[in-house]
Amino acid sequence: MGLTQTGSTPETLTAFYRTLQEHDLQPLWPIAEQLLTQAPQPATKPWMWRWTLLLTLAERAGELIAIHEGGDRRVLSLANPGLLGQPFATSTLWGAVQYLNAGEHAPAHRHTPGAIRFMLRGDGVYTTVDGDRCDMHPGDLVLTPSWSWHDHNSSSDEPVVWFDGLDIPTVRALDAVFFENFPDERLQDVVQEHNRSERLYDGRGLLPLGAAADADRESPLLIFRRADIDAALTALLRQTGGPMASLEFVDPTSGRPVMPTMGCEMHRLVAGGRTRPLRKVGSSVIVVYSGAGTSVIDGQLFEWHRGDMLAIPSWSIVEHEATDTTDLFAITDTPVLEALGLYREETYETPQPVTDVFR
Amino acid sequence: MGLTQTGSTPETLTAFYRTLQEHDLQPLWPIAEQLLTQAPQPATKPWMWRWTLLLTLAERAGELIAIHEGGDRRVLSLANPGLLGQPFATSTLWGAVQYLNAGEHAPAHRHTPGAIRFMLRGDGVYTTVDGDRCDMHPGDLVLTPSWSWHDHNSSSDEPVVWFDGLDIPTVRALDAVFFENFPDERLQDVVQEHNRSERLYDGRGLLPLGAAADADRESPLLIFRRADIDAALTALLRQTGGPMASLEFVDPTSGRPVMPTMGCEMHRLVAGGRTRPLRKVGSSVIVVYSGAGTSVIDGQLFEWHRGDMLAIPSWSIVEHEATDTTDLFAITDTPVLEALGLYREETYETPQPVTDVFR
Amino acid sequence: MGLTQTGSTPETLTAFYRTLQEHDLQPLWPIAEQLLTQAPQPATKPWMWRWTLLLTLAERAGELIAIHEGGDRRVLSLANPGLLGQPFATSTLWGAVQYLNAGEHAPAHRHTPGAIRFMLRGDGVYTTVDGDRCDMHPGDLVLTPSWSWHDHNSSSDEPVVWFDGLDIPTVRALDAVFFENFPDERLQDVVQEHNRSERLYDGRGLLPLGAAADADRESPLLIFRRADIDAALTALLRQTGGPMASLEFVDPTSGRPVMPTMGCEMHRLVAGGRTRPLRKVGSSVIVVYSGAGTSVIDGQLFEWHRGDMLAIPSWSIVEHEATDTTDLFAITDTPVLEALGLYREETYETPQPVTDVFR
Amino acid sequence: MGLTQTGSTPETLTAFYRTLQEHDLQPLWPIAEQLLTQAPQPATKPWMWRWTLLLTLAERAGELIAIHEGGDRRVLSLANPGLLGQPFATSTLWGAVQYLNAGEHAPAHRHTPGAIRFMLRGDGVYTTVDGDRCDMHPGDLVLTPSWSWHDHNSSSDEPVVWFDGLDIPTVRALDAVFFENFPDERLQDVVQEHNRSERLYDGRGLLPLGAAADADRESPLLIFRRADIDAALTALLRQTGGPMASLEFVDPTSGRPVMPTMGCEMHRLVAGGRTRPLRKVGSSVIVVYSGAGTSVIDGQLFEWHRGDMLAIPSWSIVEHEATDTTDLFAITDTPVLEALGLYREETYETPQPVTDVFR
Repeated sequence: MGLTQTGSTPETLTAFYRTLQEHDLQPLWPIAEQLLTQAPQPATKPWMWRWTLLLTLAERAGELIAIHEGGDRRVLSLANPGLLGQPFATSTLWGAVQYLNAGEHAPAHRHTPGAIRFMLRGDGVYTTVDGDRCDMHPGDLVLTPSWSWHDHNSSSDEPVVWFDGLDIPTVRALDAVFFENFPDERLQDVVQEHNRSERLYDGRGLLPLGAAADADRESPLLIFRRADIDAALTALLRQTGGPMASLEFVDPTSGRPVMPTMGCEMHRLVAGGRTRPLRKVGSSVIVVYSGAGTSVIDGQLFEWHRGDMLAIPSWSIVEHEATDTTDLFAITDTPVLEALGLYREETYETPQPVTDVFR
Repeated sequence: MGLTQTGSTPETLTAFYRTLQEHDLQPLWPIAEQLLTQAPQPATKPWMWRWTLLLTLAERAGELIAIHEGGDRRVLSLANPGLLGQPFATSTLWGAVQYLNAGEHAPAHRHTPGAIRFMLRGDGVYTTVDGDRCDMHPGDLVLTPSWSWHDHNSSSDEPVVWFDGLDIPTVRALDAVFFENFPDERLQDVVQEHNRSERLYDGRGLLPLGAAADADRESPLLIFRRADIDAALTALLRQTGGPMASLEFVDPTSGRPVMPTMGCEMHRLVAGGRTRPLRKVGSSVIVVYSGAGTSVIDGQLFEWHRGDMLAIPSWSIVEHEATDTTDLFAITDTPVLEALGLYREETYETPQPVTDVFR
Repeated sequence: MGLTQTGSTPETLTAFYRTLQEHDLQPLWPIAEQLLTQAPQPATKPWMWRWTLLLTLAERAGELIAIHEGGDRRVLSLANPGLLGQPFATSTLWGAVQYLNAGEHAPAHRHTPGAIRFMLRGDGVYTTVDGDRCDMHPGDLVLTPSWSWHDHNSSSDEPVVWFDGLDIPTVRALDAVFFENFPDERLQDVVQEHNRSERLYDGRGLLPLGAAADADRESPLLIFRRADIDAALTALLRQTGGPMASLEFVDPTSGRPVMPTMGCEMHRLVAGGRTRPLRKVGSSVIVVYSGAGTSVIDGQLFEWHRGDMLAIPSWSIVEHEATDTTDLFAITDTPVLEALGLYREETYETPQPVTDVFR
Repeated sequence: MGLTQTGSTPETLTAFYRTLQEHDLQPLWPIAEQLLTQAPQPATKPWMWRWTLLLTLAERAGELIAIHEGGDRRVLSLANPGLLGQPFATSTLWGAVQYLNAGEHAPAHRHTPGAIRFMLRGDGVYTTVDGDRCDMHPGDLVLTPSWSWHDHNSSSDEPVVWFDGLDIPTVRALDAVFFENFPDERLQDVVQEHNRSERLYDGRGLLPLGAAADADRESPLLIFRRADIDAALTALLRQTGGPMASLEFVDPTSGRPVMPTMGCEMHRLVAGGRTRPLRKVGSSVIVVYSGAGTSVIDGQLFEWHRGDMLAIPSWSIVEHEATDTTDLFAITDTPVLEALGLYREETYETPQPVTDVFR
C-alpha cells in the first residue's frame, strides 16, 4: 500500500496519524487490505450445537426461569464463538431454541425483526399472529412477520420446543429495530377461527380474488405444514432423480421468499447421498430435522444427528453426506444479498480435503 | 363536430371526401363520435347457451364427426350473435365445448393462443402438456399455456365433455397467431409420471428452490383440483361472511394470473345471496359449474342452471342471485386490461330494473 | 381436418351445421386452419402515404373544415386498404396528420386511447396536457397519455402539421374506449409555467425525490426534444459503429415505454446503410422525419422521402436502405406484445428478392 | 423481564448462565431489552467534519503519502466517534475525502462495495470505469458501481479533492466484500471515447432500444452533471414553491436509485428557509455543496458552511435552516431499508428545542 513520499519520516507520519485521529478521521491506506478483502472474511465460525445439549439446557431453563411479563420469552440463543460474545448464530442471523412448559403462555409483542418458528418437539401449542391462531405441530413452519403481534400459547401437558430464526443482526446493523409490548392485555384475542391464513392462502394455486394485487413484502400465508413439505420433497426428489431435493418456502401471492430479510429452505438428502462442494455469499443456520450424516465446512468435519444445529459462514465451502435419509431445514440471508446485487455462488467437482474435526 | 368553413358547399365536401377515400385517407370529424364513444359500446351481446342444448349438439357431433388428423378437435364454439358470425363468445374470448368419444385421442399441436380446459362431464381423460400427463376430473382446471404442445386422450368408456376457454380473439387482433402440428407422431410421449406439475408446484407455499427466480409469464402449475377449489371457497366464504366468495387461479411462482392474456376465477354465491350491481371494463365467459339462479345484465334477466354458459360484455352492469348455492367459473380478459392500464370498475347500491328476459 | 364418421352424409352434416348456427354455435373443424394459422396473416397491407399528398389534402381540409366545438379535430387518418374501410393504419395503430390553421385552437377533451404527437411542420403551437402547456417544434414528440385532458393551440401565423399516433384499434378491440369533453370551457387553463414536465422529469438521471416510487403506467415526461433526439442518435451511432442507431422513448421514472399500449422509436440509418431483413410480431407506422431511401416489405419495394408514412404489418419481412442519412420515427405495439408474452422476432442474413414495386 | 421460578437461587442461576456460556449459548431474557429496543438506538453519533480541516489534512496527506501500487488511494475517512474506532461515517455508510496531487494516478481495482464520487475542488481529473473515461468537474457525481474496474487520473496542474461515498459497512455486515487489483497494468485502457455513458444514457427520456429490458441493478449512466443538477433544482423549486427542492439520482433505465445499496440525493434550501423536523429509519452523510446554515439533530445545533460534512444517525430528528441558499448533497441507505421493508419516517410540526451546540 501507499509508500511515503520522499522526505516524510516515521515521526512526521506518526504525528500526522495522531492528528487525524484527534479529528475523527482515519487514513485508508494502512487498513485498506483488511477493509477490502479479496474475498469475504467472516467473523462467523462454522459451528454446531448438539440437540441433546440444547434440550437439556432448555429443560433446565424451564425449571429455573418463569414467564411473567410482556415480551417475555424463554429462549436460548446460539452464540457463535466467532462473534465476540454477541448472541447471534451468524453475522446476519439469530438462531435459538424456545421452550414452553405445559400450559405456559408467552405474552404478545411485536418487533421489526421478522421471525420464523420451526417446530421440533411437543404438540398442543399455537402462536397467535395478528389475531390468527396458528397451530404448531412438529415439522411445521410458522411465520411471525416484521411488526406483527404475536404470542405463544401451550395447552399441552408436556413441554414444547421449537427453533426460532430471526433477522435480528441484519435489522440491528441497519439501526431499524422497533419493539412494542401488546397494550393492556398480555395475550391477543383470537379474532378468527384457527389457522385462517392456511385456509385462505394455501389453496394450491388459488388466491382470494385481488390478493396478489395487494401483495405485501411478507407472506400472508403464515403456516407451512410438515405433511405438505414431505410430499413436496418426495415429488421433487422423484423429479430430479436425487440425491438431493431443495425447497423454498414462499409467499403464495408473489412467489418470493417468505420475508425480504430471511429465506427458509428444506433440503432432503437420500441415504448415501453426497452433495458437491458449494460456496455462496451469505450465511445460513441449519437445523437437522431428521436423519444423520456429516458435513465438511472449510475443511472441518461435522457429524450430526437429528436436532443438531449448524452455523454456516458466508463464502465457506460446504458439502453434506447423509448416512440416513435426512431433512435439513435452513434459514438464510439470501433474499438480502439478492436484493442488493451481492449474491454469488460457486460449485466444485472435487470434494475438499478434511483437515479438522469439530468436537 | 366540425362544421364547414364559410364558402364550402356540400358538393365541394363530397368531392373532397371522395378524393380522400381514393388516397386511403379518412376524415376524423364525421366518425369521431362513433370512434371515441363516451363509454365502451361492445358489439358483444349479453348471451346464454344452455347446457342441455350444448350437450345434445356435442353428442350429435360425436356421432357425425371423426377425429383423424393432426390438429383435429371436436369443438363447438360459442358464437356471440353480436359478433357478426365470428366464432367468439366475446370480443376478446373464445368459449366452447369439446367432446371426446370413449377412447378417442385428439392429436398434439401447439399455438400461441393460450387455453384452459374446465372439466364438466366424464372421467378417465387426460391432457398431455409438454410431456406432462394431466388427469382431468369434473371441476378440475387444466392449462395448456401459449405455445405448449398438448393432446387430449380418453381412456374412458363413455364420452367426456369440457369447457374450452381461449384468448384467440385477442391474439388474432394482435396478429400474433402461430400454430404447429406435432412432428411425425400424433401424440406426444408422456415423458414424466402423471401430473408432474401438480406434484412440483402446488406444495402450499413451497416451491423448488430457484423456481420463482425462473418464473415465466405462464404458470408452471398446470392443474387445479376441484377438491382444493371447493376447500378454498369454503374457507373464503367463512372468512368474508358471505354472500359471495371469489377466487383467482394463479401462477404459484409469481401470484399472477395463470396467463398474461386470460384470467380464471371461481365465485361461490350462497343460496338466496345476491350481488351488488357491478360493471367493469373487459368481458367474461361464465360457466355455471353447479347451482341455479338468475343474472341481470344491462337490464336483461337470465335464468340459469348447471352447465349453462353466459357471455358478459365489457362495461355491462351485472348482478347475480342464487336460488341454490352456486359455483360460477369464469374466464376474463382482466389481465390484459390491467397490464395496459385500461381497467376500471364501478359498483352500485341499487339493483337495476329488469326490462327484458332472455329466451 | 376432421373427416366425417362412417354413415354421416353431406345432407346430415349440412342440417347439423344449420342447427348449430341457429343456436349461435360454430363447429371448429371447418375453420380451424383459418383461425389458427401457422403464422400471422395480418389483414394490414404494407402501405405508404406520400407527404406531398398528405400535405395537399390537409391544406385543403384547412380551407373546407372549421373547428368549432368540443372534441373537434381536423385530422386525416391513414386508412390501410387491407382493413376494410376502417380508419386505421394497421390492425392495432392509428396514424394520421393533424392540421391547424394560423391561430386556431382544438378544444380540450380526454379519452382512454393514448396519443402521441410528432411535430412535422410549423412552429408556435402548443398542446396543453392536464394544465401543462407543451410547446411543440418540428421533430419534437409530445405525449397525451390515456385519459389526460388535452387541447391544441396555435399562436402561429402560418399553418402547422403534425403526425398523430394512437392505440385506438387496440383499445377498441378491448372495448375500453371512454371519451369526455372538457366541462364548460373549451380550453383548459394553463395552470403551470410552460413545459413543466420537461423541467421536472428530464433532468438526465435526476428525478424529484419520491417520483419513481409513485411511477404510473404512463410517462410523466410529456415532451421529447428534437435536439436531444439528434444528440442521442449521434452518440449511439458513434458507439455502435453504424449503420443504424435505434432509440426508444421511455418514461424516465421507470425506463419503460412511454405508454403501456404503444412504443415510440427513432432510427437513424446512415447514407448507404442497409439493414438486415427483420420480421417481428406486431405492427408499426413509420414516419420519415428526414432523408430518403427505400424499404422492402415482404418483397415489395417502397421508395420514400421526407414526410412519407408507411404501415408495416405484423410478421412482415422488412429491410431499409438509405440513400441519404435518414431518421425514421416509428410507433409500434411492441409493449402490448411484450406484456402478453407474444413477442418474437427473426433476422435473416440474405436480402429478400424484390418481386413488386409500390406505386 | 423473566423472573426466576420459585426455588431458583442466585447461585443456581449464575451456575446455569456459566454453563450456557461454556456451550456457546446465551439466555435471551437478560438482554432482550437491549437487543429489541423500542426504537433504533444507533451507535452512530450526529457529527460534523469541517471543510477547512478536511482540506488542510488532505493537503498534508498529499505531501506525506505517495501513490505507488495497485489499489492505492489517498483517502481520509470520516470516523464517527460513536463507532468505536471503525472508519465509518455512519453504521452503514463510508464517507471520505480523496486527494490527488497534480498529475497523479490512482491505479485500477474493483470491489463489491459500490462507490460514488462527488467532485469538490479542482478540475482536469477523470475516473475510468470499465474502460469509460468519466471527466469530473466540481459538483458532478460519478459512479463506480459494484465490481466495476475503476482508476482515478489527474491531468491537472493543481490538486483535486472529492468526496467518496461507499456502502462498505453494509457490504461488510453481510460478509460480501470481494476485491481485486487490475491485472498486469496499473491503469485500464480507455476503450471508448470519453463519457460514453453520458452520451448513451442521459438522453432525456431516450434510451438505446432494448436498454431497459437489459436493465441491471446498477445504473449504466455513470455521470451526473452539475449544470443539470442545478437546472433540475431550479425547476423543482419553482414547481414546489419552496422552501426546499429534493432530487434523487436515478438509473435512467429503471428509475430506481443509482445503486441497490446506496441512494444519492441533492436538496436545495432557499435563504431563510427552514425544514420541518423529520426522522426516518436509516442514516445519511451530508456534504454541504454550497451555502451556509444550521441543522438541529436530536437537539444538538450544527452550524455549517460550504464543504462541511455531517453524519445523520438513523431515527434522529433533523431540521435544517439556510442562512444562504444552500445545496446539500447526501448519500443514504434508504434503498436498503426500502428493499427490506424496514423504512419508516415521521415529520413534526413544531421545531425541537436546542439543548446542545456541536463544536
